[in-house]
Amino acid sequence: MKLYYANLSPYTRKVMATAIITGLTDKIETIDLMTDGKFTPTPELKKANPLGKIPALLLANGETVVDSPVICEYLNTKSVKGSIYPKEEQAYFFQRKLEALADGCTDATLLRRYESVRPPELQSAEWDAKQKEKMTLSFQYFDSVASKLGTSEFFIGEISVVAMIDYADIRFPQENWLSTAPNLKKWYDQVSKLPLFSETAPKK
Amino acid sequence: MKLYYANLSPYTRKVMATAIITGLTDKIETIDLMTDGKFTPTPELKKANPLGKIPALLLANGETVVDSPVICEYLNTKSVKGSIYPKEEQAYFFQRKLEALADGCTDATLLRRYESVRPPELQSAEWDAKQKEKMTLSFQYFDSVASKLGTSEFFIGEISVVAMIDYADIRFPQENWLSTAPNLKKWYDQVSKLPLFSETAPKK
Repeated sequence: MKLYYANLSPYTRKVMATAIITGLTDKIETIDLMTDGKFTPTPELKKANPLGKIPALLLANGETVVDSPVICEYLNTKSVKGSIYPKEEQAYFFQRKLEALADGCTDATLLRRYESVRPPELQSAEWDAKQKEKMTLSFQYFDSVASKLGTSEFFIGEISVVAMIDYADIRFPQENWLSTAPNLKKWYDQVSKLPLFSETAPKK
Repeated sequence: MKLYYANLSPYTRKVMATAIITGLTDKIETIDLMTDGKFTPTPELKKANPLGKIPALLLANGETVVDSPVICEYLNTKSVKGSIYPKEEQAYFFQRKLEALADGCTDATLLRRYESVRPPELQSAEWDAKQKEKMTLSFQYFDSVASKLGTSEFFIGEISVVAMIDYADIRFPQENWLSTAPNLKKWYDQVSKLPLFSETAPKK
């Protein structure tokens, strides 16, 4: 399998962490699309994924799997080790909710990033505030459920939350998001140095 | 179950079509968040979904399910009728790819919509072109796989594609997207009048 990849991408990170849990790291060849610190959607990527987004997984039969939740689910079906989903239904849907909300918060972070690199005269404070509110309410939510997050066994929800936190910190370090969410910070400080997260962490 | 809802929302439409297939329509009470033709995220919605987005499904136990792929999957586990997923693995992941790409194309359509309602002096032609390319390549892709789309049995992929097409047409009717994709248009013309789609269609 080949993975269109960027180390900075929080969505790609979900896939790399899933590969570790499922024991598939050695089966995945990564194709790095960061050049000179900038993500460049190549014609090959756009052929694999018309949205021009990473991650996109290329299978041996030529088929493509997108987007990150689907790639992670696909890899899980091929697992030779652990699972990224709990078996019990309520726990399963809690993890899927964590994943969807963390991805959505990351989407808002990314939209703010795009806004911030527009020519200054085209930047909208209103748009930035709208996306920032999504981050604020998401961090409040994750803070409120921090005691329910795993500290030794990790599923797709916890993975997505760590990816979200690190990406917010990379793009808006001056906003110090974890300082707004003390329970979440405590959890993050406890787990982020473990191999699953340190080995997939973005290189700043 | 209660569903934060808007008739115009293509993501909500996926849930309503899933409810029909799974025989759960009568179990879902919709809470309409369109007032005077405008989507208004209420404090209640933001409490249920910190991203302030619809659809969000409220369960009897107070828990919330988000986002549309997860809600559809949840409803499918409660089905008293059909399934929105094919059983065979390759067919399943094809449907999930269709869903992810159609949702992604709809995301691009929505971002263009948001851009178009900014004050004119803050609108970026470059941003619009970037999102429009995602629509162009997505419609090309769906045109290329039109012969693989179901015409009598429908899964989450076909549902998402119809939702995508109708939303593009509502927001950018002058661009006539289906005219760029003749095979997809033929498929759409064949299926869109069937009850699953006509009963969930946005009221313009």
